[in-house]
Amino acid sequence: MERFSNISMAVVRRLPKYYRHLGEIKKKDIKRVSSQELSKITGFTASQIRQDLNCFGGFGQQGYGYNVDDLYQEIGNILGLNRIYKTVIVGAGNLGQAIANYSFFEKSGFIIKGMFDINPKVIGLKINDKKVYDIEELVEFIKDNEIDIGIISTPKNQCQKVAEALSQGGVKAIWNFAPSDIKVSDDILVENVHLSESLFTLSYLLKEKEDIEYSNKYR
Amino acid sequence: MERFSNISMAVVRRLPKYYRHLGEIKKKDIKRVSSQELSKITGFTASQIRQDLNCFGGFGQQGYGYNVDDLYQEIGNILGLNRIYKTVIVGAGNLGQAIANYSFFEKSGFIIKGMFDINPKVIGLKINDKKVYDIEELVEFIKDNEIDIGIISTPKNQCQKVAEALSQGGVKAIWNFAPSDIKVSDDILVENVHLSESLFTLSYLLKEKEDIEYSNKYR
Repeated sequence: MERFSNISMAVVRRLPKYYRHLGEIKKKDIKRVSSQELSKITGFTASQIRQDLNCFGGFGQQGYGYNVDDLYQEIGNILGLNRIYKTVIVGAGNLGQAIANYSFFEKSGFIIKGMFDINPKVIGLKINDKKVYDIEELVEFIKDNEIDIGIISTPKNQCQKVAEALSQGGVKAIWNFAPSDIKVSDDILVENVHLSESLFTLSYLLKEKEDIEYSNKYR
Repeated sequence: MERFSNISMAVVRRLPKYYRHLGEIKKKDIKRVSSQELSKITGFTASQIRQDLNCFGGFGQQGYGYNVDDLYQEIGNILGLNRIYKTVIVGAGNLGQAIANYSFFEKSGFIIKGMFDINPKVIGLKINDKKVYDIEELVEFIKDNEIDIGIISTPKNQCQKVAEALSQGGVKAIWNFAPSDIKVSDDILVENVHLSESLFTLSYLLKEKEDIEYSNKYR
């Protein structure tokens, strides 16, 4: 995928983390937070945080820190969460149904306009009030409804074919849950969900813990 | 959660990314890769990559780079993927069933010993050959089967209760898919899957793209 902005992907990927942690601070009714406090919560250094937020204009004030409500709202706006995006879910199996049932999804402005599947047993069903259509109708549906984002929750072996149909229909972005990379033209944004990264991090920490316990026992 | 190692979490979180990219390079039958080439693929700087891998002993050779097969295997071992972990899935709804059906999970050494739910309609069923038990049996099952990892795929409002039962049973780690943080004692590792981080990154990039297209059109 091609980008024109000079904000690095590393910064972009930290923004949702700031947003999530700020949401948690906000819930505790905390009104003001310093970059040092944010550092403790997020695990990034205070200077990293100040530098990141400076990319988008300075939000903090020296000696005061950041106003939590304002910063939360500002980062939400930077993330585009004040907009509405139209989405379709392709693959109405377990994973697709789980996504359709996640309430945070529509609450964040990602409206599910329809679901698509190849399986006659699920075509015509409604999942959380979203109708499942025949995948044959996908390209036309995207064009008619000006869909912004296609979500792929098919098995691995179907995802490239689906990505091409989404591309043909004219989506601007793809959120891919299939555990396989997809190839589309550079003007379509692709975000892959890599569950293995989270699982393997856990695996590392568990191994580290066991090794330390073992060495403590026998030293 | 408490850690005793001096490897920073930032390094730990990059390891699964290296592992994934090396797996892709390996599939293309490439035998040798430099830190510069790895930098292009992963998006991290070459010096960052060299520094990270040096934390675990030097794997590369100056002028030669890294042997892909060896490095892949070494990082797999560092991640603990040469071990077997026993897991249970709590919450046998759509998400739990999707996880049970992911083949990469068991292939990576995470064996699903059982699934648990509160719903009489799913208790007794088999999902991908894994039996669904009554959640009442969870604590005893963990003790009897020496379960290492509990996977939470329940709705948000159930996850804290489930985390406590997993903790009482004696799991060493929790992989939490519920979109809410859980509180357990410090000696249990917790890894949360935050789908919102991936979604909000996509949202940011889409907004950026639209803004640039808009300004190109009207400048």
